[in-house]
Amino acid sequence: MSAATVYGVGVGPGAPDLMSVRAARLVGDAKVVAYFRKAGRPGHARSIVDGLLVDGVVEEPMDYPVTTEIALDDPAYAATLRSFYEDCVARLAHHVAQDRDVVVLCEGDPFLYGSFMHLHSRLAARVPVVVVPGISGMAACWTASGTPITYGDDVLCVVPATLDAARIAEALATSDAVVIMKLGRNLAKVRSALAAAGLLDRAVYVERGAMADQVVMPLAAKTDDDAPYFSIILVHGQGRRP
Amino acid sequence: MSAATVYGVGVGPGAPDLMSVRAARLVGDAKVVAYFRKAGRPGHARSIVDGLLVDGVVEEPMDYPVTTEIALDDPAYAATLRSFYEDCVARLAHHVAQDRDVVVLCEGDPFLYGSFMHLHSRLAARVPVVVVPGISGMAACWTASGTPITYGDDVLCVVPATLDAARIAEALATSDAVVIMKLGRNLAKVRSALAAAGLLDRAVYVERGAMADQVVMPLAAKTDDDAPYFSIILVHGQGRRP
Repeated sequence: MSAATVYGVGVGPGAPDLMSVRAARLVGDAKVVAYFRKAGRPGHARSIVDGLLVDGVVEEPMDYPVTTEIALDDPAYAATLRSFYEDCVARLAHHVAQDRDVVVLCEGDPFLYGSFMHLHSRLAARVPVVVVPGISGMAACWTASGTPITYGDDVLCVVPATLDAARIAEALATSDAVVIMKLGRNLAKVRSALAAAGLLDRAVYVERGAMADQVVMPLAAKTDDDAPYFSIILVHGQGRRP
Repeated sequence: MSAATVYGVGVGPGAPDLMSVRAARLVGDAKVVAYFRKAGRPGHARSIVDGLLVDGVVEEPMDYPVTTEIALDDPAYAATLRSFYEDCVARLAHHVAQDRDVVVLCEGDPFLYGSFMHLHSRLAARVPVVVVPGISGMAACWTASGTPITYGDDVLCVVPATLDAARIAEALATSDAVVIMKLGRNLAKVRSALAAAGLLDRAVYVERGAMADQVVMPLAAKTDDDAPYFSIILVHGQGRRP
């Protein structure tokens, strides 16, 4: 049995020096790196490690076959992605079979949303897999906001904006602090849910937290509903503060 | 005005190489480090940076005046802590006034629970403060569990076990994935809430995630209710998995 390993490495939220020391060492030593990207784009995870890779590194870009062209609940969406992930797994397992370690670059933390988990579940039965946690995008966003996300015994809820309005409203009603992820085209829906819950004045909008061009503003001051997929809304907790 | 700065630095969940590159650089360059600890103990955050500090570094241990001797809802608890935090702030601000940067060592991420935020709110109006996010203890725990905490559009709830049973039950009922923190003496209560919600078979108990002596086991296999304060229970999401 080969000792070569697939490493799922959290490369953090964007700034290269917010990678862990362990991740930076694995990336800098890597002979093979793999990463997801939208076809035709450099890939965000790949961009983070620019300048850290050795000369001659083998790159395995994994280009999503679809992003928003097919609805999430269309069976064709799942079938297309299933086939894509199987293909990715075959490519990575091939390197391992040749006794080459593979470092999979994962934005943020590999086990908090993200695509690596779809490789992980398939790879783990076939080859050694090691996961290195990372600083999440949401942690970069609440750091950028300048205010702690939770105090004392606050309940924190992380809610994908892709959910329907009722589910978002339920999460807002039962939490003290909220992170709403995956905004993209869902910003108007989220804004309405926050207004209905009386939380609009506490909501903070953050784009590209921890990156040089980060944007932090009260949501109430944002006059349009244009938001990139990776933007986030925060409602900070107001718990115990001795 | 002094340009000296207080850095609130997330040193991560426990393994020194899970500190960010930025954090490791700040810790390694620090002339003054401050950290919370239980009186008579070395302090967990301080232990993480063992071997990284320069010779002659000035240490400012901040010993909690109380931990569990006074009930959280006793006014004496808030008053004691308030006075303690004011004293800590005065000690740190004194270094800044002498033009010395101070690195405050924070376990996990400084803005996700933790005590640094009580210094931050007091310091930020007086001196420059910079926060460096870190890998959270909960991320180390779900990595240790070998299973992603969230898939697809899962709603993730982070719940302090110190809350009453009804509030914990509400969080369990409205989430797809759950992290229950601050277990300590609250394990029996949490176990009952999980059983009532039909989640006992999915619950995983993790102690000291990312550390050499980490413990990961199904909660159902844990026969006692002894848990350190920093242990965590995870209920993994079961969302979309193409």
